Amino acid sequence: MPGPRYTPLVAALPATVPFVGPEAHMRASGREFRARLGANESVFGPSPMAIEAMERAAQDGWMYGDSESHDLRAALAAHHGVAPENIVVGEGIDGLLGTLVRLLVEPGDPVVTSDGAYPTFNYHVAGFGGVLHKVPYRDDREDPAALLTRAEEVGAKLVYLSNPDNPMGSWHSARVIQRMIDALPDGTLLLLDEAYVDFAPEEAALTFVADDPRVIRMRTFSKAYGLAGLRVGYAVGAPGLIAMFDRIRNHFGVSRIAQAGALAALMDQGWLEDVVAQVADARVTLAEIAERNGAFALPSATNFTAIDCGGDGALARKVLEGLMARDIFVRMPAVAPLDRCIRVTLGRPEDLKAFEPAFAEALAEARAETAG
Amino acid sequence: MPGPRYTPLVAALPATVPFVGPEAHMRASGREFRARLGANESVFGPSPMAIEAMERAAQDGWMYGDSESHDLRAALAAHHGVAPENIVVGEGIDGLLGTLVRLLVEPGDPVVTSDGAYPTFNYHVAGFGGVLHKVPYRDDREDPAALLTRAEEVGAKLVYLSNPDNPMGSWHSARVIQRMIDALPDGTLLLLDEAYVDFAPEEAALTFVADDPRVIRMRTFSKAYGLAGLRVGYAVGAPGLIAMFDRIRNHFGVSRIAQAGALAALMDQGWLEDVVAQVADARVTLAEIAERNGAFALPSATNFTAIDCGGDGALARKVLEGLMARDIFVRMPAVAPLDRCIRVTLGRPEDLKAFEPAFAEALAEARAETAG
Repeated sequence: MPGPRYTPLVAALPATVPFVGPEAHMRASGREFRARLGANESVFGPSPMAIEAMERAAQDGWMYGDSESHDLRAALAAHHGVAPENIVVGEGIDGLLGTLVRLLVEPGDPVVTSDGAYPTFNYHVAGFGGVLHKVPYRDDREDPAALLTRAEEVGAKLVYLSNPDNPMGSWHSARVIQRMIDALPDGTLLLLDEAYVDFAPEEAALTFVADDPRVIRMRTFSKAYGLAGLRVGYAVGAPGLIAMFDRIRNHFGVSRIAQAGALAALMDQGWLEDVVAQVADARVTLAEIAERNGAFALPSATNFTAIDCGGDGALARKVLEGLMARDIFVRMPAVAPLDRCIRVTLGRPEDLKAFEPAFAEALAEARAETAG
Repeated sequence: MPGPRYTPLVAALPATVPFVGPEAHMRASGREFRARLGANESVFGPSPMAIEAMERAAQDGWMYGDSESHDLRAALAAHHGVAPENIVVGEGIDGLLGTLVRLLVEPGDPVVTSDGAYPTFNYHVAGFGGVLHKVPYRDDREDPAALLTRAEEVGAKLVYLSNPDNPMGSWHSARVIQRMIDALPDGTLLLLDEAYVDFAPEEAALTFVADDPRVIRMRTFSKAYGLAGLRVGYAVGAPGLIAMFDRIRNHFGVSRIAQAGALAALMDQGWLEDVVAQVADARVTLAEIAERNGAFALPSATNFTAIDCGGDGALARKVLEGLMARDIFVRMPAVAPLDRCIRVTLGRPEDLKAFEPAFAEALAEARAETAG
C-alpha cells in the first residue's frame, strides 16, 4: 500500500532532532542522573506561589486556557512598560521560534545566525526550507558586526542573536545591541533571544520600544522563573508583527496551568532575585571547581557556565562522556572552537558537590587518554 | 522603517481566528458565564487521580517534559494494543493537526473535508496554502462516499473525517469507516479525528492496525478525560508516518504536568466510565428540555447535543445570541443546513438547570422576532 505523499521539503529533512532529553539518556543508561545540569533548567525550582497557583489551576484543568492569554499578557505588558498588543504568548521560545520562522521564511529564503548558536532555531529554519548562513563566534561571543555584514550580503529576512548567549554564557551591552538594530539592512528582522536575560547584568537589557518593526525579543518562564516543564514563553515586538502570529499560531496551545503558573511567577520578583543570587553563588563555586582541576570557567551572564577543559573538542567530549557515565547530565557546544568547553548549569550546592569529583575523574581520564 | 518581509502565503492569510474563547466573551460582556457549555469541555472534570498527579508534577515544573513522552506513549500503546512507535503525543489535536498538515500540504495541494466540519483543521490547511475541497453533510452526518469521490476527483493528499462528528454529534460504524479506508485512492491519507470517540457506541471504534499507512487517528485528553486545559492529544498511525512528526514537531512542546495528568487519567478508566454515564444522563435530560420547548435534540454520540431550533440559521443564531446574553456559553454550526441547530455541551444537572429557562426565553424571543 502506498504511503502518504509528504511535501518535498519534509521528505528531504534529516531525521535528527535538536536535543536528546535527559529522560532519554536515563532510559538508555538505566540509571537516574545524580545532578541534572545539562538543560539549563532552574534547579532552584519555581516560586512557591507559582506552585500553589498551578495546584489550584489543576482543578480547573478541564477548561481550555484563555486563547488570548489576556491576564498574563496584561501583566507582562505592565512589567515591561509596553502594551498587551506588543506581546504574544506561546509554547515556550521553541514554539515561538517555529511560528516566527514560518511567518517569514519560505524555501530558499536567507537567514543568518552564528555557527554554534541555538540548534532549535536552525531546526525550525531547516524545517521551513530556509537557507542558513552562519558566521563564526568571535572571542566566544556572537559577533554583531559579522552578523550584520552577512545579513547585508545575503539579504537575510531574519538574523538570530541570543543575548546573553547560549552555549557560551557571554553577553553584549544594550548599547551594542541597539547599534546593531540601527544598522540592520531594510527588511531584515532581528530575532533577539533573551531566554537568559534575567541572569545578566543590567547593562545587557535593552529598553523596550513599543513600535520598532526591526526587532522581536523572546523571553521565557523556562529559565530564571523555573517553569521549563510548563511551556510558556513570550515574544515582544511591534503590534503589526505580533498580530501576524494570530494568523497561524495554535490559538489554544498554551496550557491553562502554565498561564496561571507564569502569572504567579511573574508576580513573585523576590523569588526571581533570590534565584539569581543563588545562581551567582554557584557561578563562583563552579569557577573554583574548574580552577582546582586546572580548567577554566568562562565569564557567564546566564544560569550556566562554559568550562574550558584546556584542549580541543575531542578532549571536552571525553570529559562530557565521563560525566554522563557518572550520571552527571551536562551538554557541550557543537562546533570548534566553542567545543573545547563543556556547558554546566549553575545548580544548588548539592548538585555542584556531586559534580566536582565526577568532573575531576572525567577530566583526569580524558587527559590520560588524550595524552596516550 | 520597513517591516519584516512575510511569506506571500502568510501575507495573504485572513486575520480571522477559528474560535473566540469563552474568556474573551466574558471580557467583552463584563460578566461570568453561568454555564460553560460551548467548547465541549468535560464539565465533570478530570479524574481526582489526574488532579493529584498534576499537583505532584507542579513541584517538578522546573524540568522540561520528556521530549519522547515515553511513559505516556507506552501506556497508550498497551491500552490500544499497538506499539509506542505507532504513537506521537502533541499539544492537543489542534497542535497535531497543524503538524500533520505541514507534513503533507504545500501551497496548491488538494485537501478534502466536509462543509461545516472542524474549522481548526481548515485553518491549518489554509495556513499551509492547501486548497480545501468541501462536500456537504448528508442527513447531518459526514458523507464517506462523497468524501471519497471528491478525494479521487481532486487527487487529495489528505481527507478529514471526524467520527463521531463535531458539530452534529452523529457517527458512523467502524465497518463504514473501514470500507472508506479500503476505498481510499492511492496516496490519500485519511485523517480520522476521534476526539469524541470515548462517548460513542462501541461499534464506532475501529480496530487498531499497527501498520496501515492509509489512516492516521487522532485522540485527545481534552474531552472525556477532562484535561482540555493541559494540551495533550495523540495520533496513532503507521510507524513510518509517526516518525515523520519527529522531523518538524516541537520536541519539548508537551508540558511535564500534562504528561503526568494524562497518564494518571488514562489509568483511571473507572472515572472515564463514570463521566460517560453522566454524559448519557445529561443527553436524556437535554433532549427533554428541547422537547419541552418544541425543539428537537439530534441523536448524539459525543458529549454535546445539536439542538434543532426548528427554523433556519437566522433563528438558531438568535437563540444563540439570546443564550449568550443570558450568560450561557454555547456555540453553533457555521453552515446551512447544520446551522438550524445550536450545539450544547452535555453538562452537570446544575448546568442544564441554568440552561433550560435561558433557552426557553431565548427561543421564544427568537421565534417572536422571526415571526415579526
